[in-house]
Amino acid sequence: MDTYRFIEGGITAPKGFKAGAIYCGIKSKKKEKPDIAILYSEEKAVCAGMFTTNKFAAAPIIYCREIVKTGSAQAILINSGNANAATGTLGLENTRKLAQCTGDHLGLQADDVFVCSTGVIGVQLPMEKMLNAVKDIVPTLSADNGPSIARAIMTTDTVPKEISFELELSGGTIRIGSMAKGSGMIHPNMATMLAFVTTDASISQEVLQGMLKKAVDKSYNMMTVDGDTSTNDCLLLLANGMSGVEVKSEEDIKKFYEAIEYISMEMAKKIAADGEGASHLIVVHANNLQTQDDARKVARAVAGSNLFKCAIFGQDANWGRVISAAGYSGAEFETGKIDVALESKAGKIDVMLEGAGLAFDEEKAATILKEKDIYVHLDFHDGEECATAFGCDLTYDYVKINGDYRS
Amino acid sequence: MDTYRFIEGGITAPKGFKAGAIYCGIKSKKKEKPDIAILYSEEKAVCAGMFTTNKFAAAPIIYCREIVKTGSAQAILINSGNANAATGTLGLENTRKLAQCTGDHLGLQADDVFVCSTGVIGVQLPMEKMLNAVKDIVPTLSADNGPSIARAIMTTDTVPKEISFELELSGGTIRIGSMAKGSGMIHPNMATMLAFVTTDASISQEVLQGMLKKAVDKSYNMMTVDGDTSTNDCLLLLANGMSGVEVKSEEDIKKFYEAIEYISMEMAKKIAADGEGASHLIVVHANNLQTQDDARKVARAVAGSNLFKCAIFGQDANWGRVISAAGYSGAEFETGKIDVALESKAGKIDVMLEGAGLAFDEEKAATILKEKDIYVHLDFHDGEECATAFGCDLTYDYVKINGDYRS
Repeated sequence: MDTYRFIEGGITAPKGFKAGAIYCGIKSKKKEKPDIAILYSEEKAVCAGMFTTNKFAAAPIIYCREIVKTGSAQAILINSGNANAATGTLGLENTRKLAQCTGDHLGLQADDVFVCSTGVIGVQLPMEKMLNAVKDIVPTLSADNGPSIARAIMTTDTVPKEISFELELSGGTIRIGSMAKGSGMIHPNMATMLAFVTTDASISQEVLQGMLKKAVDKSYNMMTVDGDTSTNDCLLLLANGMSGVEVKSEEDIKKFYEAIEYISMEMAKKIAADGEGASHLIVVHANNLQTQDDARKVARAVAGSNLFKCAIFGQDANWGRVISAAGYSGAEFETGKIDVALESKAGKIDVMLEGAGLAFDEEKAATILKEKDIYVHLDFHDGEECATAFGCDLTYDYVKINGDYRS
Repeated sequence: MDTYRFIEGGITAPKGFKAGAIYCGIKSKKKEKPDIAILYSEEKAVCAGMFTTNKFAAAPIIYCREIVKTGSAQAILINSGNANAATGTLGLENTRKLAQCTGDHLGLQADDVFVCSTGVIGVQLPMEKMLNAVKDIVPTLSADNGPSIARAIMTTDTVPKEISFELELSGGTIRIGSMAKGSGMIHPNMATMLAFVTTDASISQEVLQGMLKKAVDKSYNMMTVDGDTSTNDCLLLLANGMSGVEVKSEEDIKKFYEAIEYISMEMAKKIAADGEGASHLIVVHANNLQTQDDARKVARAVAGSNLFKCAIFGQDANWGRVISAAGYSGAEFETGKIDVALESKAGKIDVMLEGAGLAFDEEKAATILKEKDIYVHLDFHDGEECATAFGCDLTYDYVKINGDYRS
């Protein structure tokens, strides 16, 4: 990726973005790690968002959908430890109160403030603690806090997930930063993939929202840790224009979109690789099907198959499970032309050719599957549409993490 | 179930059915437990069948679909250890050869013989061993062997699954027997739920096939161990008429259908309860939705949620995961009217009322969730359609069984 000049700073790398996080006791039984954070832009930013399709969308999701419709925003309040989901009218009122309070302290309107929550479902937010925390965070906001708020939003994540780089457009240099959290449904009874993107480019809201949808369909929507779509999944993008560089020409829009897609793919891969209990990232390429929908179905079914996930955990080149998952994916294809191969940085091995299993070197397969990142290639020779899905293996630790009692 | 007089005998309880099984070495690396079996009817039987929808249907599935179309059959050859799936033209030829050989030894036409296989995918059948085995089994066929062939078809199943009873119809007493195997995808790289039903009732093929489809939709198709639809799933029903009792009047057809539905539900429940590594059976009732499709979607999503399955393993009343799964099931419903309760023989506890979480007695919940069979009740108060799904918890042992190397 020579196009991107990677830089430090994460979510606050783009010009004019600041952040801060503190511990306020939402996760009362955990050690005192930050559980509430603010991301702030010095100037009002064009915004775009993508949200969970779960019918039990949490209060903050309902609220953020409204804010995206206004087309602009200037701050995001984020808490972990409580998802504010299944909390009824009071839950939504609380979200609005938090936005109002954050706006007051930052000198903004309430509807310039997004609110994102992740944590236990069905419990009301500890409002007093949170309102006090907002007041305490505001004076600490700093452009140096990108990496630290990427850590603050972690729950069962084992590594912070962030990325930032510079990109040359016709009008000059812009910066893009991103951070995300999520590794399954996180804390028991919890939800959520939260992802944030910032940029100092100047771009129209309409173009931005269209780009975000397209990029999310290729990345976050092709990622599966356990097949459970949370009540709180949320991706927000703020473009504050402070670089003074406009994204307007066809070529710049293409470049900028590619950057958004790249960042989304990278973050999705990071989340899948850090899936709860995961020991392997699984990347599935379903190639050369007749429709994009078929390619997506196959890639997601293989990446999501519990049986195949267990096989990868066991480092077993169990290609029968790959084709079985493709077979029940609902995709249309001819079964007699498929090639299947497994790959990692240790090498590549063909396991199926033209729909029939191959005798392969089990030792070589074992060496390949010892690596952390495993690539599965399915070639259907039945069209030109391709899709990629991201998943992880299913391990004892996944069961342990999610079988543990909530309290 | 006063309607049914339970009897011994299993699959060979109905008049005129005989069975036999031996070890022939298909599973060469396992201890010598029977791996090939024959079920035989003294008279030609009307037949019905339901098969996997997986696009990679195995050779025996392709073959059995043809036989069902003939409307009658008299024997079923069953092997474990090799699924004869992804084996191309040779695989299908081998299935036909086995049918021919079985027919020859039993004095039947090849197309009176079903062939069912379960086991490793992508490896050709050891034909010589199997052809010899057929010859050896035929002289051992006996009406007493029902329970022993229910054991012979077990793989990672921990208990044999069989049921048999008598039913009074207007023309006299008939018997129905059933056996099944399946607990996930069984042996690594393996497939398959296989289920068989026999009856000595006399009934038209058309009526029988219609009944079977309807019963399977309510039972086997509502059962999920790991979401992986195998390449070899197969349910066959033989009705040989040897009781001399016809199922013809509307009332008798109704009674007989209810018996087929009952037996299918019971067997589905047994399979789910014996799911790979399972410590709990999970029965999900989705009640009072607007359409049957919605009710089925909700019940299956909840029973299939990895997160909820882990919670039940951990004996955690994690109702957030129940509604989250309902929310992403794709079903249409109002979120504000839902009641959720958890139940076992130790009692019942309400955890959600009218869409909002309840403060409940955690101790009572823990006592309820200690039991083996857990019932989840969702009432949507939004229609009259109800559906039930059967699943099991997700445990360390599931991962262990499916992460183990194939050989």
